[in-house]
Parts: sequence; C-alpha cells; structure tokens
Amino acid sequence: MTPPLPMVAPAENLPKRIRIHEVGPRDGLQNEKTAVPTEVKAEFIHRLATAGLTTIEATSFVHPKWVPQLADAETLYPALQDLGHVELPVLVPNERGLQRALALGASRIAVFASATESFAKANLNRTVAESLAMFAPVVARAKESGAHVRGYLSMCFGDPWEGAVPVPQVVSAARSLLDLGCDELSLGDTIGVATPGHVTALLSALNDAGVPTDRIGVHFHDTYGQALSNTLAALQHGVTTVDASAGGLGGCPYAKIATGNLATEDLVWMLQGLGIETGVDLGRLSATSAWMADRLGRPSPSRTVRALTHQEQ
Amino acid sequence: MTPPLPMVAPAENLPKRIRIHEVGPRDGLQNEKTAVPTEVKAEFIHRLATAGLTTIEATSFVHPKWVPQLADAETLYPALQDLGHVELPVLVPNERGLQRALALGASRIAVFASATESFAKANLNRTVAESLAMFAPVVARAKESGAHVRGYLSMCFGDPWEGAVPVPQVVSAARSLLDLGCDELSLGDTIGVATPGHVTALLSALNDAGVPTDRIGVHFHDTYGQALSNTLAALQHGVTTVDASAGGLGGCPYAKIATGNLATEDLVWMLQGLGIETGVDLGRLSATSAWMADRLGRPSPSRTVRALTHQEQ
Repeated sequence: MTPPLPMVAPAENLPKRIRIHEVGPRDGLQNEKTAVPTEVKAEFIHRLATAGLTTIEATSFVHPKWVPQLADAETLYPALQDLGHVELPVLVPNERGLQRALALGASRIAVFASATESFAKANLNRTVAESLAMFAPVVARAKESGAHVRGYLSMCFGDPWEGAVPVPQVVSAARSLLDLGCDELSLGDTIGVATPGHVTALLSALNDAGVPTDRIGVHFHDTYGQALSNTLAALQHGVTTVDASAGGLGGCPYAKIATGNLATEDLVWMLQGLGIETGVDLGRLSATSAWMADRLGRPSPSRTVRALTHQEQ
Repeated sequence: MTPPLPMVAPAENLPKRIRIHEVGPRDGLQNEKTAVPTEVKAEFIHRLATAGLTTIEATSFVHPKWVPQLADAETLYPALQDLGHVELPVLVPNERGLQRALALGASRIAVFASATESFAKANLNRTVAESLAMFAPVVARAKESGAHVRGYLSMCFGDPWEGAVPVPQVVSAARSLLDLGCDELSLGDTIGVATPGHVTALLSALNDAGVPTDRIGVHFHDTYGQALSNTLAALQHGVTTVDASAGGLGGCPYAKIATGNLATEDLVWMLQGLGIETGVDLGRLSATSAWMADRLGRPSPSRTVRALTHQEQ
C-alpha cells in the first residue's frame, strides 16, 4: 500500500506560507500531572526543531509554586542554546519572571491576559484592567531590552463562567495589549467553543479597530473538534501565524485523551494538502509526538499521529 | 458555570439549511466486531430521530455472509415503521438486496461504487465498469418502483493502494452513477486524506461536467482530523447534504477509538455556531451517542460527545 499523504490542491486566497507557533513544550507540558524530566523536555524540543518547527515556545518563568511542571526553566533554557536557528519564546507572568528570562538571554517574550473578568480573576486574581497594568512595565522593559513580545489573550470566544464573549470586549482587550507595546497577539479559544463565522467576525472587528491581520495569531483548542475548521477560516481571512501543539498535548491530564490544543500534525496535514509551506516533516513530527506520548504514558489525541504511527487506544 | 454552546455567528455565502444524512446505524454498526442486538439498533434509531435527525440510513441488505453485523435487516426495518416522518434509506448491493428492501417498503435506496479499480476489486471483486454494470438494473428497478436512489462513491480523494486519485477519474465514475439514474451522489473520502482545496477542486470539476451541487453529498472520514474543515470547504461551495455518524461511529473496531466518519455532533456544533439550521438537539444527540458508546463498551471518538457528556477515557 502507498503511504497515505494528502494530494496537494491549493485553494484560492490563502497565504502561501504559515508560521507555526509550536506551544507543546510550554502549553502542553504545563498541564501534565507530574513534571516531565528536564532531559526529556530538552530532547523533545530538539526533536521538534529537527522536524522543521522554527518557533517553539520552550517554557515559562512563572513562579514554581504555581506551575511546578515548568520549575526547571533555568536549567532547560540553557540546554537549548545550540538551537540558534530556532525562535524559543518563553512565557513570563511579571517583572521577576522577565528578569529571569532576560538573564538567560531570551529574546522572545510572551505575556498572558484575559478577555473576560471571570478568567482574569480565576487565573491572575486581578481584574482585566489590573492585569494589563501589571503587564505594562513588563512589556516596556522587554521592548527596551530588544525582545519581541507576544500577548496571549485568553477566552476570546467563550468563557466557562460568562458564556459567549462579546466581540467588542475582545477587541478592547486586544487593543490594550498592542497599546502596551506587544508586537503580536495570540487570540485564544481557551475552551474550544469557537466556530468559523465567529472567527471571521472577530478578525474583521479587529481590522476595523486598526489591528492589522499580520499582527494576529490564532490559538484554537479542539475540545469540540472545531480547531482545524476555525483555523481554515482564519487562514481564509489572511492570518499567517497559527499556534499548535505537537501531538495535541495540553488537554486535561486527568482524562486519558482529553483534547487540548490543535494538534500540530493535524494542522500540517491540512496545510500540506493546501500547498502551504511550513517547513515541517510530518513523518518526523508524528514520530516525535508518538515518542512523547510514550514518555507520558498515554496515547496522543492527534488523529494524524495515531493514524501515521499506528497507535492503538 | 454556563453550559458551553457556540455563539451564533453566521458566515457569508453559506447555505441556510443543511440536510444531515446520518449513517451511524449502517456505516457505523457494520464495522463493529460483533453484531449489536436488533432491539438496541431499533432504540438507537428511535433516539436519533427524537434528537431531530430526519434522514437516518437504517441498515443494509447485503448478504449476511459479508456483513453479519447487519444480518437482521428484515427484523429491524419493520421495527422502524412508526418513524413515518423520518427518511430511512437502506443500502443494497444487488438485485436480490433490492428485492428484499422493496418487499419491506423501503423508499430510499443506496448503492455503492468505487472511484478506483483497486477498491472496486477489493470491495466488490469487480472492475469499476463491471460494478457499474451490476448496479444498472438495480438502479433502474428502484427508480421504477418510485424509490429515491443515492449512489455512494468510495475513494474519491485517496486510495490505500493507488495514492491520490485523479479528479477526472472521480468525475467520470460520478457521471456514470448519475447516468444510471441515481438521484444523488455521496462522495466518500474513505481513508480520510482529503484537504479543503482538493474538495473544492473536485466539486468544481463535477460542476464543470454538468453535475449540479444540489445532487452532491459529501462523506468525510476523520482519520487525519480533516473531516470538519473539508465539510466547511464543501459548504462554502454550496453543498447542502452532509453525511455524518452519531458519535463518530464507524472506525475500525479493533482500535479502541480509531476514528471513522465525521461525528454528527462535531458537525452540528459547527453548523449551530454558523446559524445553519439542522433541526438537531445537540444535547439529546450527544446523550444518545454516549448511551450507544456504553452499549459498545468503548468511548465515543467524537470530541463534542466526550466534552458534553464528560466521558473520560
């Protein structure tokens, strides 16, 4: 039998090239029940780079008390120094985290805000306004040091406490992040409820508010199986930065294959079929995610990984 | 917390209403290791109807030797007679099967052909031309009896033996099915390799060959996680008939949650968000699929079912 691969059939009005912002090592592994050993994380990131990913969010400088899974940031980050050709953004929650990251030479920083008050309260114990005020000096200082700054915005489509999130509310929070100095935004569908028309409506409203599409990344979760069709809608709008997580890492660790982020492999399958360049070797990437799934002791939630590596459930 | 639901945000240039052709009881259950009891099948179909599905492919009149899982068609079909408002198409492989179906009063018939020689040989032990010749009298007789005839066409995008299937080859087989008298086509991505540009290319080529979009249904498999984005591309082309399987039934029964057909729930979530009417109650449908998953002893592969019914893996 011929190994399955998508036939290349470009669609009209889509970008020619996409930047995949790989979040597995950070957004995926921070959700694991127990911390993955530093050497495994380092090997994972090296394998992802070898598979062709060029932007890999490596870790987070959040206080170890809050995210013990990533408490080894100071050891891990230096172990990636040989990956000079790969962008290795790191998440920072505050000025102390930024200092730690900059001291290690990080040149791409990410901060995280919420579009809803409920999640700002739950995640940051602050109002949206207070959290933005907290990030203002962080972003300013990162920019002074020459770093590129990404602003994550959570709950851009729905919120578990508030239901559907009004588009103008998201636009306002997004504008605030850019006004602080963020170079790019990542619009998060944290609970996975978005659908394609909602995606287009938000992107259009952001454009209307003066936010150009090339400063917007999208970050979809696959909780209801919608992540890839939402991504297609974003591509059709002209978005060229897509967040994804190798093997779909990032679900709740207490459910055996609960789905979290859009799986990078499922994304690459579609992009490859559409003739959109990513530079990723799908076979190598799937093998890496299957290897990581073995380390974590449960199968990958990515359908492409399961199909290409014959992982049985 | 608010129960999660998509916000309604219609997209431009999409159909206002979609007909979901539910294939779970036939395409799903024929792939089970062991036959599901007739009473369970009947209850399943009744529950699907109560959830609002209006076209439910009920069973197959294939020889019991080939598909023992559906050997109870003669008992099951009469048990659905109270569902007068629901279309209950049945699959027939040949004239004998058609006679059995018509004798029970079936008014919607489906036949199945292949776009590739390899699969025609494997599945029907005939060439494509021979299988079409075999179906000619079946379709003719079904039409004479006043039945509506659907023609399934397998391997429209990729084939496990032949790789990518050329679009003109699919168009030719599709035209042949319509020339036999089929009222509608169902274009199957049997191995799940399609991507959105390929979908659009095939639909456009069919239009160019004189096949109107309103006679085309699409039938995607989620093997590589592509089914819903391919469906979105088909909707954007104007397709209004979409095949789906409740709970995503239809994967290989030997893998615990191997994915088969597009899950009806994942589809309904997207359609509901897009403001496209389906008449389906998503909560009831998900509960039905969770109930069926319990009967089958393994979790549903549908992400929406798992999320809405809190099925842990």
